[in-house]
Amino acid sequence: MPASDSILEAEILEQPKILSHLLNEERPAIERIAQIIRQRSPKFVVLAARGSSDNAGRYAQYLFGAFNGLPVALATPSLFTLYEKPPRMQDALVIAISQSGQSPDIVAVVDEGRRQGALTIALTNDIESPLALAAEHRLNLRAGQERAVAATKTYTTSLMMIAMLSAALAQDESHFAALETIPAILDQIVSGADETIKASERYRYMEACVVVSRGFNYATSFEVALKLKELTYILAEPYSTADFQHGPLALVADGFPVMAIVPDGGLAGELVEFLKELNRRGAELLVISGREDALEIARTPLPLPTGIPDWLSPIAAVVRGQLFALGLTLAKGYSPDAPRGIHKVTLTE
Amino acid sequence: MPASDSILEAEILEQPKILSHLLNEERPAIERIAQIIRQRSPKFVVLAARGSSDNAGRYAQYLFGAFNGLPVALATPSLFTLYEKPPRMQDALVIAISQSGQSPDIVAVVDEGRRQGALTIALTNDIESPLALAAEHRLNLRAGQERAVAATKTYTTSLMMIAMLSAALAQDESHFAALETIPAILDQIVSGADETIKASERYRYMEACVVVSRGFNYATSFEVALKLKELTYILAEPYSTADFQHGPLALVADGFPVMAIVPDGGLAGELVEFLKELNRRGAELLVISGREDALEIARTPLPLPTGIPDWLSPIAAVVRGQLFALGLTLAKGYSPDAPRGIHKVTLTE
Repeated sequence: MPASDSILEAEILEQPKILSHLLNEERPAIERIAQIIRQRSPKFVVLAARGSSDNAGRYAQYLFGAFNGLPVALATPSLFTLYEKPPRMQDALVIAISQSGQSPDIVAVVDEGRRQGALTIALTNDIESPLALAAEHRLNLRAGQERAVAATKTYTTSLMMIAMLSAALAQDESHFAALETIPAILDQIVSGADETIKASERYRYMEACVVVSRGFNYATSFEVALKLKELTYILAEPYSTADFQHGPLALVADGFPVMAIVPDGGLAGELVEFLKELNRRGAELLVISGREDALEIARTPLPLPTGIPDWLSPIAAVVRGQLFALGLTLAKGYSPDAPRGIHKVTLTE
Repeated sequence: MPASDSILEAEILEQPKILSHLLNEERPAIERIAQIIRQRSPKFVVLAARGSSDNAGRYAQYLFGAFNGLPVALATPSLFTLYEKPPRMQDALVIAISQSGQSPDIVAVVDEGRRQGALTIALTNDIESPLALAAEHRLNLRAGQERAVAATKTYTTSLMMIAMLSAALAQDESHFAALETIPAILDQIVSGADETIKASERYRYMEACVVVSRGFNYATSFEVALKLKELTYILAEPYSTADFQHGPLALVADGFPVMAIVPDGGLAGELVEFLKELNRRGAELLVISGREDALEIARTPLPLPTGIPDWLSPIAAVVRGQLFALGLTLAKGYSPDAPRGIHKVTLTE
């Protein structure tokens, strides 16, 4: 039984199906675009996005870097709009991500990219939107209409699309095979929704926290923090664990809540050591992980299925974070569907 | 008379002199490196840094984009170290910024850049450091030893160095002339130290805030927030005003403190409108600005000299923010020189 009759909960729960649909339907279009990109062989990527889509861009930064050798520059839209001094992008692949495809500053980056002769691609949930029409190529997130203000399924479909594009560029069938396992993994995660929602009760009066990870899940820490801010109005600050040690570590005092995402793979050892250090400093740890050694340090373990590869884990880990944010919203007595003061589509220049 | 006998205060106050010294001493070296860069004509910049130096990198992102046409990708050091999957950088200019020049992950980005044949430059306060030795070229911040844990003069010298390099690349004497005005501007700002320190008293029990700006001063919002976190242990979150509207705006309720940096120029109109909106929502505004229309909306105005060009203003605005952070540290009864739990040099991999 659902914990609420909210649209947000329904949209979180429908993600396994939506992602399965995307995998089945959009691959031919992605393969076509990947071929065009390989022919043009861009030197680097310029990525334009805002909000949750910008967090999807952070995932692209690691994925395209690690598996496609492409450095990714996150665009500085005000250079294109308010300052009217856009950088040179002839040798770039310009990728814009926006569920609505409406924000004028993101459209401006794509317009300028085309004017300069760069290859431009829009990832959007509305292929009739201004952004979709501005770009030379478009890919359809196929998430269905997203009605809750806080983005969930358009975030995971953006990650899936980026991962499919990376796999197609690298012509790596093993990555596609790994992506095929995602819907079943998400089924497992959403089947534990009740427990996650229950675990959030303890944080009813939490007013602030930090969310930390590193590498591929740097994106996850930003997205989970954004959900907490949008839905529960707490000050949730995202950090790479490396940056956190260069200064902000000073924040941690007795009982200070730190949520950490700990994936399998090469980063796990370092992250677990860091969590032990936070424990010694008296932090209260919430840990999203499939690893026993990470979960057992946590005051509040938020488990994932075991053995998900690091590069794939952001698509899974964020769903546990979404469920936690939903639970905390309900515990605090707020509306999951209509957070105060913000709208579904925000137009910035 | 100084407000404290702290090293931090002494280092803040010595910035006018230090920056004047840098302008006089380092220009020939910068001109030589600018000529080498022009000959190689890199397609884009990869910038590697942590903490305050990473915030200086955010300034470089706007400055090199606006005046040198160069897109800037902030490096993802874990791809070079923990994942061992560095992206391709043959056509890049690799710039590393680190006052100590010690952090292994930043050195790793430079090592890999050289291995791939990219042009590499280190900006550091220790030209005997591992980072300085790893890079093909090095520029000396000449800040003198920085003894307080929280970086101040090595941040402003990094900004000055970036601005000098940008001006030399563009062969723009008018920018050098503008940079020559900075020491006198900083003299004016530090002469108002007492008032800034007094203004911070009101925030003795503040536990959280956001620091917002956009464009060139996006960097300033990050750096002022970092000073507040390091020194006063409050949760201070930096934002671009555009990103802030895509979700986190939900945080603003009655009395919520928002510090804004409002420069002169094309952004001012939009930023002032945004501040009025925050006022309507009941935010408590602290405004760092040289503009009357921005200061008069603020509960706590933190004035700058008038007429500083937008691109130059980050070197000035951050000093007012440093003084505010020092004041709040004293008001809260903490040590300005030795924040709890962090060290001057942090080694991350």
